[in-house]
Amino acid sequence: MESKNLLRYIFFLFFTVLLLLFTFSDIPIISQSPPSTSTIRFKNPTTNAARRHHSADVPRHPLDPLTVTELKRVQNIIQKNDLIALHSVVLEEPDKEVVLAWKKGDPLPPRKAAVVARVGGDSHVLTVDLGSGEVTRHETGRVSGYPMMTVEDMTSVTWAPLASADFNRTVVERGVDLVDLACLPISTGWFGKSEEKRRLIKVQCYSMKDTANFYMRPIEGLTVLVDLDTKQVVEITDKGKHIPIPNAANTDYRFTAQNSYLRLVNPISIEQPKGPSFTIEDGHLVKWANWEFHLKPDPRAGVIISRAMVRDPSTGEMRNVMYKGLVSELFVPYMDPTDAWYFKTYMDAGEYGFGLQAMPLEPLNDCPRNAYYMDGVFAAADGTPYVRSNMVCVFESYAGEIGWRHSESPITGMEIREVRPKVTLVVRMAASVANYDYIVDWEFQTDGLIRIKVGLSGILMVKGTPYSNMNQVNHQESLYGTLLSENVIGVIHDHFITFYLDMDVDGSNNSFVKVNLEREYTSPGESPRMSYLKAVRNVAKTEKDAQIKLKLYDPSEFHVINPSKKTRVGNPVGYKVVPGGTAANLLDVNDPPQKRGAFTNNQIWVTPYNETEQWAGGLFVYQSHGDDTLEVWSNRNRAIENKDIVVWYTLGFHHIPCQEDFPIMPTVSSSFDLKPVNFFESNPILKIPPNFEHDLPNCKAYAASA
Amino acid sequence: MESKNLLRYIFFLFFTVLLLLFTFSDIPIISQSPPSTSTIRFKNPTTNAARRHHSADVPRHPLDPLTVTELKRVQNIIQKNDLIALHSVVLEEPDKEVVLAWKKGDPLPPRKAAVVARVGGDSHVLTVDLGSGEVTRHETGRVSGYPMMTVEDMTSVTWAPLASADFNRTVVERGVDLVDLACLPISTGWFGKSEEKRRLIKVQCYSMKDTANFYMRPIEGLTVLVDLDTKQVVEITDKGKHIPIPNAANTDYRFTAQNSYLRLVNPISIEQPKGPSFTIEDGHLVKWANWEFHLKPDPRAGVIISRAMVRDPSTGEMRNVMYKGLVSELFVPYMDPTDAWYFKTYMDAGEYGFGLQAMPLEPLNDCPRNAYYMDGVFAAADGTPYVRSNMVCVFESYAGEIGWRHSESPITGMEIREVRPKVTLVVRMAASVANYDYIVDWEFQTDGLIRIKVGLSGILMVKGTPYSNMNQVNHQESLYGTLLSENVIGVIHDHFITFYLDMDVDGSNNSFVKVNLEREYTSPGESPRMSYLKAVRNVAKTEKDAQIKLKLYDPSEFHVINPSKKTRVGNPVGYKVVPGGTAANLLDVNDPPQKRGAFTNNQIWVTPYNETEQWAGGLFVYQSHGDDTLEVWSNRNRAIENKDIVVWYTLGFHHIPCQEDFPIMPTVSSSFDLKPVNFFESNPILKIPPNFEHDLPNCKAYAASA
Repeated sequence: MESKNLLRYIFFLFFTVLLLLFTFSDIPIISQSPPSTSTIRFKNPTTNAARRHHSADVPRHPLDPLTVTELKRVQNIIQKNDLIALHSVVLEEPDKEVVLAWKKGDPLPPRKAAVVARVGGDSHVLTVDLGSGEVTRHETGRVSGYPMMTVEDMTSVTWAPLASADFNRTVVERGVDLVDLACLPISTGWFGKSEEKRRLIKVQCYSMKDTANFYMRPIEGLTVLVDLDTKQVVEITDKGKHIPIPNAANTDYRFTAQNSYLRLVNPISIEQPKGPSFTIEDGHLVKWANWEFHLKPDPRAGVIISRAMVRDPSTGEMRNVMYKGLVSELFVPYMDPTDAWYFKTYMDAGEYGFGLQAMPLEPLNDCPRNAYYMDGVFAAADGTPYVRSNMVCVFESYAGEIGWRHSESPITGMEIREVRPKVTLVVRMAASVANYDYIVDWEFQTDGLIRIKVGLSGILMVKGTPYSNMNQVNHQESLYGTLLSENVIGVIHDHFITFYLDMDVDGSNNSFVKVNLEREYTSPGESPRMSYLKAVRNVAKTEKDAQIKLKLYDPSEFHVINPSKKTRVGNPVGYKVVPGGTAANLLDVNDPPQKRGAFTNNQIWVTPYNETEQWAGGLFVYQSHGDDTLEVWSNRNRAIENKDIVVWYTLGFHHIPCQEDFPIMPTVSSSFDLKPVNFFESNPILKIPPNFEHDLPNCKAYAASA
Repeated sequence: MESKNLLRYIFFLFFTVLLLLFTFSDIPIISQSPPSTSTIRFKNPTTNAARRHHSADVPRHPLDPLTVTELKRVQNIIQKNDLIALHSVVLEEPDKEVVLAWKKGDPLPPRKAAVVARVGGDSHVLTVDLGSGEVTRHETGRVSGYPMMTVEDMTSVTWAPLASADFNRTVVERGVDLVDLACLPISTGWFGKSEEKRRLIKVQCYSMKDTANFYMRPIEGLTVLVDLDTKQVVEITDKGKHIPIPNAANTDYRFTAQNSYLRLVNPISIEQPKGPSFTIEDGHLVKWANWEFHLKPDPRAGVIISRAMVRDPSTGEMRNVMYKGLVSELFVPYMDPTDAWYFKTYMDAGEYGFGLQAMPLEPLNDCPRNAYYMDGVFAAADGTPYVRSNMVCVFESYAGEIGWRHSESPITGMEIREVRPKVTLVVRMAASVANYDYIVDWEFQTDGLIRIKVGLSGILMVKGTPYSNMNQVNHQESLYGTLLSENVIGVIHDHFITFYLDMDVDGSNNSFVKVNLEREYTSPGESPRMSYLKAVRNVAKTEKDAQIKLKLYDPSEFHVINPSKKTRVGNPVGYKVVPGGTAANLLDVNDPPQKRGAFTNNQIWVTPYNETEQWAGGLFVYQSHGDDTLEVWSNRNRAIENKDIVVWYTLGFHHIPCQEDFPIMPTVSSSFDLKPVNFFESNPILKIPPNFEHDLPNCKAYAASA
């Protein structure tokens, strides 16, 4: 065993080095590249675009993220304070009124960093003033839970089990060579005493022999409980000794691993002969068509859209729509109560960092050729800044859709055919939280609509089973999912993505109005009609009035209006939240995971703006008890009429896996819209021109033009 | 008055001629053009494509629509039978088993026409054998209701009121010059005795002075009841004497009518350097990527998709998915019980002909540059064939979306980024049923999914009002809608589009399975989890088991499976119906319009295949009493397990108009999907390649390349 142990440690060291190498391969070599120009105009940004090093980035907008230079300054200041494990270092945004008052050319408000650190078992929340170099706020956690894991937490803990001879023996007994081991850090959730007073994680492992898709080869039932701070193994459980490791055949999804390929369509591309129609000023201010907004990557939320404004075609004025929008939390409960699965109730933003998991986008495939890419600049656990290149893309999309149209019909015989194409601007990121991939699109339309779309792809979290055919199964429900392939079960689960939407419709003071469609009966003799629908407006006075479960048979529109501003004919200006296909959370509200995920108990909530209420599961979600969620805040039932309000919308998916999801899932999407409702005096794109032949490009096949 | 009367009649004649000219401007001049080649391969089909005359079209597939030659033959045969008013002349499709058995190269089954005619106040249903020239079936209507109106019905009746001096005087008194009059034929619905025993229609009029958008200038409250057979005015009602005609300002939407325009974006185009990836064999058989289906225009349904088959990547075999899919009916009830509005409860397919109202698509705007266009060949009321050119388009779409993806994350550190772009094939038509425009897309994905999307645009049906500002209104609900502009109310209404989907998943005998997600509680001590969701499969035995109202809090998946065919691991192969955002009908089920629209009482129904049950509101919808609807059929509660079954899905929209809908509405869309569920052994697009730079086109601006 001695030589085997040595081998194991060499292997461990080798992989650790490899891991660190890959994880931080985006760290820049700081060079003397010229400062970024104030406005980037670009044509055909491609794979070959020179990587930007960001060493000379300077903040130019109050909401700009911390630069490499600023992060280094934070690191220096914090090191003086002996707080070594930094779980989050981001801009502490200036007060809202300061940002709203700021105009281009004004000096920037004082730059501050919000830091979450852990030392000696305590969580610390600090504000660092970058001007003075002082720590101006220093609090230790008062609620349950721990900060978001660092990338170092996640990677290092997956190797911790190897320090246990028991673990290694178990793995070998299960028929897996230690060199083929791939392990994942799985947040434990909180179920009571056993998850209290220390930071814990469960590690589960897979065989990566003969496939890059180790997710399809679970060492089922083997769970290692590890102390996340000490990296000590606390407990090893193996309830899967009778379960074979599924075969590697047909699991690898990489193009290079295919023995043949299937070309179904000819090349197709979105082309813009005169280049894109947007600019990105000062690195973060996106200006496109009638829209303007600030865009930045964030380690927890992924991307943050701020100060979204749209131009009024009648006045030319830029009008406020949304102060800030972001993915606040993701909640992914699996539906299997057994030992190795019950705890899988992920909070992907608050536990893993939705932005930390957003890898570089793959040009030409994640985003079309006409895309512009934006990098993320984040801090590692020791405070060192690093660059996540191509983390966000921005592109214009045209799918052949129609903005508006009308033909006169044979009924009138008038020869009118007026049609306008629909072109949109998409801001995209894709986070890979281990197996799963989430594609989040913020899509801006010229008619004032914002569509927020979430696509799910990536790889299922599967369960090993002795079954190889359904004819061996007596009760399908006992599988907790679908038999996808021999010895592989896709376990049923839900996805909930909760959005924070700080709407500021023509100013901060807004009201939330439920416009309920109710069946009304006519009086006898009033009409040949017996029934019709009437729209009844209910202004929400307090938060509980705006705790909303969607109902197909008791439908409403959900308006955010500015009660102080009316259109020419006297309607209050507004935007509405338009749900699309979605799924509700059906877990019992007293189930421990659901207490933590209580922010999914309604599809819509409205709270008064409070700068401390941004993360629906609480600031410290990891092992939290659910004492700091959106539900807790909302149940205070504060006044929300004619106030600065925040709308929360949860988009849900039920996922009963099917064989088509094996070994990698075709994308499934759903979306919701923010849509102007009496915001404009009339159709804001009435005067856009149609497409004309002479505007379109003249294209050749690449080969022909080479 | 005498000279005014003369003027009126000159004007009447002039417009009638104009109308006929426009209405039939697509009638071909039959020429000696060469027969269409068996397979069309095309590149850059554009506006300039030569119009095809169809005089030499020959049917080559059992489901091909009647050709010009065949329609003329029907006309000759029918003329012998003295049935002059033809309300529908379409192919009588051969029996399903005959079509399923037919293979390319086989002789065509006997060609027959299904004819609906009216003579002497009776509706006749005939089958004409084109081989023998015999009428082989001749029935007269046994249920309530009348056939779909002819285009001639609709156009001629709008001029009928002018024969009434009372009407003309009223119009002039309302301040509208007769030369500015534009009138619409509005189906009366059925509310009891007064709509029985004769074919009636209501005509309402507008002023087209100073605008092409006369819809925004209603002569509110003026309703003329006309006998549709005799064209006699039955009754004139004017309840709107106090209501001004709204102003024309800012209502015209035509590009040429704008005094300025708003160019928001640079030109953008979908380009395919190597041309489209699809072919259309024999004029109607579309072959794209892994899909094949038969496509034809239809005067009532719009388009019909038949024999949709997808290739199995593991066997290369084409597998049946859907025998036939179409828009069966549209139901559009308005929510205003007053005299001039209560009856507005349109059935756009069965009353107006959804295909008859589908006007030529506008190249470059209705469909992108890479689109192929298909013409419709229909029969006029006298049987004469005419061509509706460019009625349907087919194009490939790429919006920058992702077919599937996975990146390895910082957690594992593996350097994997695999992404595949999503390219789809869209079949589109756009019907303009007077004011409203419906865009119907059948979108095929390479992963086996079919997305069926309905977009709503066009112009609102508005109501005149004395109000010019909301500050004059005490009870907003009394408007029955929204004040959109001075004196203009957009009335609340619903849209329901009911689809007929004859699914044949790997064969005709299928079962419908409700896979219900139910909350399950764990036993004490079983698990730290209290609750989870389990999937419970319920096979529908009879029709009532499959009358489905969607419920967010009692969710199900809806599978159509083939119980006789299983995957390798033993799951039944299937497709599922995946609802998206939708709206339910809330009218009282006993309200007369809702009796006729009873097919919208559920979102999903499943019936055993019956060739007479294709139109959800019944064969004769006009003034029907609701005695021949999908609900009536389904309530027979026939067996549907392991049978040839038809799924019906209703997509709904509630529409509370807003000012942005004035004077023309930005498109609002919703969709549902048919999605493979254990149909393929695994992800069918695992082996498609990513985009590579060298495949993409090399494009120049048109001007630069000129």
